[in-house]
Amino acid sequence: MANKKVDLYSLKLPEDLKKLDIEQCNDLCRQIRTVLIKTVSKNGGHLASNLGTVELTMALHRVFDSPEDKIVWDVGHQAYTHKILTGRLDKFGTLRKEGGISGFCRPDESKHDAFISGHSSNSISAALGIAYAKKLQGDDHHAIAVLGDGAMSGGLSYEGLNNAGKSDTNMIVILNYNEMSISRNVGSMAKYLSKMRTRSSYKKTKSAVERMLDVTPVVGAPVKKVVRSSKNAFKNMLLHSTFFEELGFEFIGPLDGHDLEELEAGLKAAKALNKPVFVHVNTVKGKGYGPAEANPGEFHGVGSFEISTGNPDVVSPDSFSSVMGKELCRLARADKRICAVTAAMKYGTGLQYFAKSFPDRFFDVGIAEEHAVTFCGGLASAGMIPVFAVYSTFLQRSYDQLIHDLTIGGLHAVICVDRAGIVGSDGETHQGIFDMSFLKSVPDITIYSPSDYEELRLCLKKAVLEDKGVSVVRYPRGREVSGHELDSITTSYHHIKNGADTLLVSYGRLIDNIKDAADLLEPKGLKCDVLKLVKVFPLSDKIIDIMRSYKKVFFFEETYREGSLAEKAAAMCKNVEAFGINGLVSHGEPDALLDELGLSADKIASTVRERLKDET
Amino acid sequence: MANKKVDLYSLKLPEDLKKLDIEQCNDLCRQIRTVLIKTVSKNGGHLASNLGTVELTMALHRVFDSPEDKIVWDVGHQAYTHKILTGRLDKFGTLRKEGGISGFCRPDESKHDAFISGHSSNSISAALGIAYAKKLQGDDHHAIAVLGDGAMSGGLSYEGLNNAGKSDTNMIVILNYNEMSISRNVGSMAKYLSKMRTRSSYKKTKSAVERMLDVTPVVGAPVKKVVRSSKNAFKNMLLHSTFFEELGFEFIGPLDGHDLEELEAGLKAAKALNKPVFVHVNTVKGKGYGPAEANPGEFHGVGSFEISTGNPDVVSPDSFSSVMGKELCRLARADKRICAVTAAMKYGTGLQYFAKSFPDRFFDVGIAEEHAVTFCGGLASAGMIPVFAVYSTFLQRSYDQLIHDLTIGGLHAVICVDRAGIVGSDGETHQGIFDMSFLKSVPDITIYSPSDYEELRLCLKKAVLEDKGVSVVRYPRGREVSGHELDSITTSYHHIKNGADTLLVSYGRLIDNIKDAADLLEPKGLKCDVLKLVKVFPLSDKIIDIMRSYKKVFFFEETYREGSLAEKAAAMCKNVEAFGINGLVSHGEPDALLDELGLSADKIASTVRERLKDET
Repeated sequence: MANKKVDLYSLKLPEDLKKLDIEQCNDLCRQIRTVLIKTVSKNGGHLASNLGTVELTMALHRVFDSPEDKIVWDVGHQAYTHKILTGRLDKFGTLRKEGGISGFCRPDESKHDAFISGHSSNSISAALGIAYAKKLQGDDHHAIAVLGDGAMSGGLSYEGLNNAGKSDTNMIVILNYNEMSISRNVGSMAKYLSKMRTRSSYKKTKSAVERMLDVTPVVGAPVKKVVRSSKNAFKNMLLHSTFFEELGFEFIGPLDGHDLEELEAGLKAAKALNKPVFVHVNTVKGKGYGPAEANPGEFHGVGSFEISTGNPDVVSPDSFSSVMGKELCRLARADKRICAVTAAMKYGTGLQYFAKSFPDRFFDVGIAEEHAVTFCGGLASAGMIPVFAVYSTFLQRSYDQLIHDLTIGGLHAVICVDRAGIVGSDGETHQGIFDMSFLKSVPDITIYSPSDYEELRLCLKKAVLEDKGVSVVRYPRGREVSGHELDSITTSYHHIKNGADTLLVSYGRLIDNIKDAADLLEPKGLKCDVLKLVKVFPLSDKIIDIMRSYKKVFFFEETYREGSLAEKAAAMCKNVEAFGINGLVSHGEPDALLDELGLSADKIASTVRERLKDET
Repeated sequence: MANKKVDLYSLKLPEDLKKLDIEQCNDLCRQIRTVLIKTVSKNGGHLASNLGTVELTMALHRVFDSPEDKIVWDVGHQAYTHKILTGRLDKFGTLRKEGGISGFCRPDESKHDAFISGHSSNSISAALGIAYAKKLQGDDHHAIAVLGDGAMSGGLSYEGLNNAGKSDTNMIVILNYNEMSISRNVGSMAKYLSKMRTRSSYKKTKSAVERMLDVTPVVGAPVKKVVRSSKNAFKNMLLHSTFFEELGFEFIGPLDGHDLEELEAGLKAAKALNKPVFVHVNTVKGKGYGPAEANPGEFHGVGSFEISTGNPDVVSPDSFSSVMGKELCRLARADKRICAVTAAMKYGTGLQYFAKSFPDRFFDVGIAEEHAVTFCGGLASAGMIPVFAVYSTFLQRSYDQLIHDLTIGGLHAVICVDRAGIVGSDGETHQGIFDMSFLKSVPDITIYSPSDYEELRLCLKKAVLEDKGVSVVRYPRGREVSGHELDSITTSYHHIKNGADTLLVSYGRLIDNIKDAADLLEPKGLKCDVLKLVKVFPLSDKIIDIMRSYKKVFFFEETYREGSLAEKAAAMCKNVEAFGINGLVSHGEPDALLDELGLSADKIASTVRERLKDET
C-alpha cells in the first residue's frame, strides 16, 4: 500500500498497520484524532490523554503483535486509539453509552484488551503476572505496561517496578510522560521524571540504533543474537536513568511521543532486549486539538462540547463536590486545625477553592489513597482535623488504613466520599457501590448520606467539628435533584407520616425516588409513609423503633446488597425487606441504570405493589 | 553519673539517658539485651529485630526529646527497647500478656508511642502528617519514621517518600537496614539498598561532622545557623545516595547501627539540617544473642524458648498453615498451572515447601499485598492458577485489588486467608476479624472456612481446581483442635440432628465450641441441633432452608459483627439471632479472649440458655 493515502475505515486492524509506511501512518494518526475529537465532543469522555497517545499506540501495534503480545493500559484514559486500532472503530460512536463500548479496557470487549483498567497504577503488576505466565509457558512474547506519570505516584506502581526489575521476563514498562496526572502532578518522583524529560534526547543515538536494527529482521533469533553479543555497545547507545536502572531495568528514552519513527525505533530496541525494559516517552496532552493542548486539565474527563470552541454544552453551576468544597472553606476560615487532602482530584472533589484559600493546609498527595489516609492519621494525631475528599471507588484502596491508621488509634478524621452510588458512563470500575459495605465494617465509624446541598453542609460541619473518630459524609456525583422543604433538612432522619402501615426507607439521592414511588402508590390505594435517613450509620435506636412500629418496611439502597445498611436493618427488624444492587454495574446513564437495577420511582412502586399483594 | 556503671532499673527514663556517657550507655545496651532475651524467651514475641535496634533506640532518645519529638516506629517489631527506655521497664515482663503491655506501639499505652504500629510501611506517611501539623503549629520539633528494609518493599512507604522528600518539614526517615524483612528480603529496592550498605562507611567523614557539631550546642538557633551558612561544606561531608536525594532528601549514612557514637553523630547532623533527611543505618538482626544472629528468620516472631540453646519450648508439628502448604505442593505436582504467591510470609503461611519444590512457580513479592493480588490477576489472565497465601489482617490492604483486578475481569484466583479470627498476643492490629465482612462484599466470591486439616485439604483442592472467580479458603492461626469424625468432613455443611427445635450454627474452629455448648445444654433439658458450615458464602438455599426449619437459631461467629455472615443469615431468616465480635480486640491468649467475647463453649451455652428463657 506504499505511497498511497489510506482510509482508516477501509483497513483490517490491527493487521494492516504493518503493511503501511510511516507517512501513511502519520496520516492515519490525523484521521484518528478527528474521530477522537468528534466522538468525545458528543459522548463525553477522556480527551486530552487520548490525544497524547495516538502515535505511541500506532507504534505499539506496528512493532508488537497483539493479542499475542499483551498490552496492559493503565487507567485506560489513554486507550481510545488502541480501541480504534483493534477492530472497534465501527462501534466507537457508542463509546460510554449503555450497551456500547466501554471508556476503559475490558478483556470481555476485545481480546486485545489484556487486562481490566480503570483504577490507577495496576498495569505493571498485571503485566508482570502475564510476563511470568508466558515465561512458565515457554512463550517469548512480551507483556507491556503503558502508564502515565500520574500513575507513577501510586505505591502499587512502585511495588510492581520493585518486583519487575529483577524478573527474568520479557516485560516492558512504557512511561507516557506528559507532566500531568489528572491535574498538576505532585511528588518527588514527578520532579525526578520531569528532569529526565529535558535530558538530551534519544535522537542523538537514534540513527545508530536504527542502523543496527535495520540490517536484521526485527523479530526472531538473529536480531536477538546480534543485540546480545553487542550488548555493551548497544547499551552505550541508550541513555541511562539511574533510578530505573538501579531497579534492574534497561532504560530507553526519552523518546518523542509524537515522532512515529523515533517511537518505533525505541520500541524495536526494547523488544529485542528480551529483559525488563523501561521506556520513557514524552507526549503532549491534548496534542492536535488547540483547546485541549491549551487546557489539558479541563479536557481530562469532559462532558459533550462544541468542537470549534471547546466550550462545554452544559455548564454545571454547582454540584455536591463544589458545595462541599465551598463549605469546607467556610469552616476552615474559622478553625485553623482543618486541613484538606486529595489524591490527585483537586477539581473532581471541589477542593480547588480550599487549595486557593488555604494553600498551607491543602495537600494533594498524588494518586496515593493509602498514603492519604495514613497521612490524615499523622495530622490528626498531632491535633489537626484532616478532611480527605475522595471518590467512593478509589477509597476502596484505603480500607486497611481506615482501620489501622485511624480507627485503632481513635483518631478523628473526616472522609468526604464523592461519587457514592451509580456514577454512570465510567462503568464497572468506577461505580461507588461498595463504600457502604466496607465502611460499615470499620469499627466506631459514623456515616452521613445527605440528600441535598443544605444537608451536605450541615453534615460536613457536624462531622468536622462535633464527631469523634472516623466520620464519613457521602454524596453522589453531580447535582441535587430539587429543592426540598426546609423543615425536612436534618443531620439525623426525617419521617414523613401519612397514617400508613407500610414504610419506605432510603437515604441520599434515592430519597426522591422513594417519595415519588409513594406518590405513585397512593392513588392505587397503597398508602406509604417515608423515612429519610441522613445519619445512616450506626442505625439509632430511634430509627429502629420507627421501623419496628410498621407492619411492613421496604428499604431501598443504591449500593451493593451484601453487607449493606438495608441488610443490617433487615437483620435487626424482622419486618424489613432489603433491596440493593445485586452485582457489578456496567456503564450507562445513571437514571437508566437505576431503573434497570429496580431503583427508579416506577420500579420501586411496582416492587412494593407486588410484595404487598403477595402478603395479602 | 559519669564513669560509673549504672543500673537500668535505677534510672528515670528517658530523661536520665542524656546525663550518661557513651560507656555507661553501652553498658545499658547490654543490660537491655538481657531483659529482651529473658522476656521474649518467656512470653514469646519479636526478638531478632529488637536485638538489632538497641543502640539505635538509645541514640534516638539521647539526641531527640520524646515525646515532643515524635518517633514513629514502623511495624513495631523493633520498638521493645523504646518501650524499655520510656518508662515501661517495670511492666516489660507483661509483654503481650492480657492486660500487659502490647508487642507493638500504642499511643494509649504511652505518650512516647507517637502512632499505632503493626501493619508495615505506614511510618513515613504518619510521620509526614505529624511533621506538617508541627509546621502549621509553629513547632520545630522533629517527626522521625524508623523503618526496616522490609517495610521499604511496601508501596505505602514509597507514597510516603514521594510526598515527604519535597516537603518543607522537619522530617527524618531512618532506614534500619538488616538485609531481612521477615524472611529473606526481595525486590530490586532491596538490592539497591544492599549495594548502599557496602559503600565506604560514614566513618571517614564522621570526625569532621562531629568536630563541627561539637563546637556548638546541638539544639537551638546557633547550630542551625552554622549548619545553614556552611550548608555546602556540610553537605559535602555526607555521603550521597542518588535515589533518596532525587526524591528530595538529604542523605546520611550508612551508619554502623551498633556504634553508639557514630549513630549519635549522624542523628545530630540529621536533626540540625531541619529539612527532610534520610538516614541509612546498618544493623545486625539478632545482635548479641548467638542463636538469633545465626538464624534471624527463626527468631523473628517466636514462642517461648530455652535461652541457653535457643530451642523452642514447644515444637509445633503442624498447623493449618503447614497443612495448606503441603497440600498445595501435592496439587502443584499434578498441575503445572498452579503458582504460589506470598507477601514476605513464606514461613508464616507454610509456603516454604512450595518454594523448595517449585521455585519457578513461587513468588515472594515482599511486603506488597496490593501488588500480590494484581500480580495474581496477571497470572490468571494468562492461564495460570495463582494462590495467594496471606494473613487475614494484611489482606485488608488488597480490598480494592480483589474487586478491581480479579473480580471485574472474572479471573480465577485462590486466596488462602491464614490467621483468620482471633490471633492472640499480637493484639488489635493483627486480629483477623474483618475478612468475612470485606470479602463478602466482593461480588461473586466463594468463601470456605474449614474447621480441621482434612477439610482444609478438600476445600483447597475444590477452590483451586473446581471453582471459578475468586475463591477464598480461610483458617485460623495454629493447630486443629481435635480429630473430628470422618463422616462430618465436607466442603459444604454438616448438620447434626438431635431432634431439637433450636439450632446452633457456626463455622471454622468455633464449631468445637458450639458442639461443646450443645453438650453443656443437653443435661439442662435444652436440646440443640448443630449446623457446621464449611462453604460459608454464598449461603446456599439448602442452608437457608435448614435454618428456617427451626423455631430458633443462634449463629455464632468469630468475626466483627457488622456485615458478618451471621448478620446476613439474620436478614434472610427471621428466626436467626446473630452473635459476633462488637469491636476491636486487644491482645491476650486466644481462648481467654474468646471467652471474654462470649464465644467460649461456656459463654455460648449461657447465652443460649438466657435467650431461650426470655422467649418462654
